Amino acid sequence: MKIRIGIVGYGNIGMAAETVLRQTPDMELAAVLTRRPGLDIKTPGVPVVLLEDAESLVGSIDVMILCGGSAKDLPEQGPKLAALFSTVDSFDTHAVIPEYFLSLDRAAKKTTAILAAGWDPGLLSAFRLLGDAFLPKGAGSTFWGRGVSQGHSFALRRVAGVKDAVQYTVPSESAVEAARGGAANLTAGEKHTRECYVVAEEGADRARIEEEIKTMPHYFAGYRTVVNFVDSVNRADMPHAGLSLRTGDSGGFRHTMELSLKTESNPVFTAGILTAYARAAFRLSREGGYGAKTVFDVPLSYLSPKDSATLMRELL
Amino acid sequence: MKIRIGIVGYGNIGMAAETVLRQTPDMELAAVLTRRPGLDIKTPGVPVVLLEDAESLVGSIDVMILCGGSAKDLPEQGPKLAALFSTVDSFDTHAVIPEYFLSLDRAAKKTTAILAAGWDPGLLSAFRLLGDAFLPKGAGSTFWGRGVSQGHSFALRRVAGVKDAVQYTVPSESAVEAARGGAANLTAGEKHTRECYVVAEEGADRARIEEEIKTMPHYFAGYRTVVNFVDSVNRADMPHAGLSLRTGDSGGFRHTMELSLKTESNPVFTAGILTAYARAAFRLSREGGYGAKTVFDVPLSYLSPKDSATLMRELL
Repeated sequence: MKIRIGIVGYGNIGMAAETVLRQTPDMELAAVLTRRPGLDIKTPGVPVVLLEDAESLVGSIDVMILCGGSAKDLPEQGPKLAALFSTVDSFDTHAVIPEYFLSLDRAAKKTTAILAAGWDPGLLSAFRLLGDAFLPKGAGSTFWGRGVSQGHSFALRRVAGVKDAVQYTVPSESAVEAARGGAANLTAGEKHTRECYVVAEEGADRARIEEEIKTMPHYFAGYRTVVNFVDSVNRADMPHAGLSLRTGDSGGFRHTMELSLKTESNPVFTAGILTAYARAAFRLSREGGYGAKTVFDVPLSYLSPKDSATLMRELL
Repeated sequence: MKIRIGIVGYGNIGMAAETVLRQTPDMELAAVLTRRPGLDIKTPGVPVVLLEDAESLVGSIDVMILCGGSAKDLPEQGPKLAALFSTVDSFDTHAVIPEYFLSLDRAAKKTTAILAAGWDPGLLSAFRLLGDAFLPKGAGSTFWGRGVSQGHSFALRRVAGVKDAVQYTVPSESAVEAARGGAANLTAGEKHTRECYVVAEEGADRARIEEEIKTMPHYFAGYRTVVNFVDSVNRADMPHAGLSLRTGDSGGFRHTMELSLKTESNPVFTAGILTAYARAAFRLSREGGYGAKTVFDVPLSYLSPKDSATLMRELL
């Protein structure tokens, strides 16, 4: 029997999860949940259910893949849905993960709620833990890009006089080399350049827009920020990349570990990770492994559709 | 209280484990087990115990780190010691891992026996599983080197007329590029060059030695093999490296994951991994998670001395 999946939220990640599920033989898309009445989805025959009616799906969904935003959607939807279903999400507001973890853990009494399971946090977090455990006397650094940051692109679009905009985060080559050499404590601002592609409204004051962007707290202040005015941007282009490094010294020898990711579509890659963790949530819940979990808590074998003997033969 | 570790076998990996344990605050070296009477070790005050007297240590060792060879030592020592103690090893004869797993699993009734926990199998295996789970429609390749292969160096030294020798395994750049482009099913021979540094005995027939090496089945036949005759080699130099790649297509987009390792000392890096898995074996056994385990079965948090809240804050 296939694992019955519900997708909650039909934005970039929700649509990507739908695509990934079509090529995942041990799972089936059983429902899409949304706040938008009359939403049309790509997969024929799959019911679209209003979020407020989620409870009606108890017993017909094994795992909900939560595809909403970390700022507003997940803090509200996560605990509500985790009380009824096992869930998985890619919550990515690092600073409030402990708080979100607790709210899920309190709700998930008879379910399994895996949070922060995207590529960062998620895959790169797993790498950071391995690096820290294997090379404890060492230093780690993570770089993002070259790729589009949705949050920063959104921030650009709120500046007065900006018609459209996309922001690329670009790692600094010299900072990457410094990290490979063992440099620790590089700031995010030292590690990354923020390239902004901005379509200005006709007659807008470009100097003022550029100044407003470069001084925007949290988003651009403290970063090397480059503002390029262009005629148009392509919002559908969502590549991203990530690089995490760990260097360490032990016994007088130097050791280096690097994990590098590159994707032409951030949402599709994220959906691939979410789908694997949905499989893990299903299995954990069946075994009574209830409560909130992170990628640190899940044995890797739970992510794979292959049995132990096959994993040992093909991948160990 | 510290985790009490026994080191079994005092060769390259055993000595490296001793070094790593000295910089591991939550563990202490409690004994070294050996077949060699009168063995002298570097750490003062630590008892050296003959392997045949292992049973006398029950109750005073939490985990045995097995540092013997995969060909002869581990198949015999592993099950015997796993019946008495939790164990961890870096068993690396891929073809017979399932058989070794079963022999450990049968022995480890009240203990936890983690096998094949080095860098490959081990760390790179974990990466291969993640790649396979996140990008199931894709291809994976693993490359070894540039680094010294102990097994191949040993094979060179058995050739008549060879006084000393070291073998470096070198990945082919063109094969790495092909794998990045999604090529699957590259053979080990296509992926690697075997560079041999050979000190010939005086008067030995170098052409015959070279021919014998290049046609040696399993070790060199089928590989691009380069034989360099030199005046001396440095056996103490044991760098190694590994690169595992996964490429995948989903939803019409291309995704790539790469894990790369470089170490100046293969034994020390391996010992760092073994030490972290020894911590996991200790915790699993305390919880009743008995039996044989691979890196696929161990939640990552068990590898770290840090508690969940710290891991979430610092590494997630």
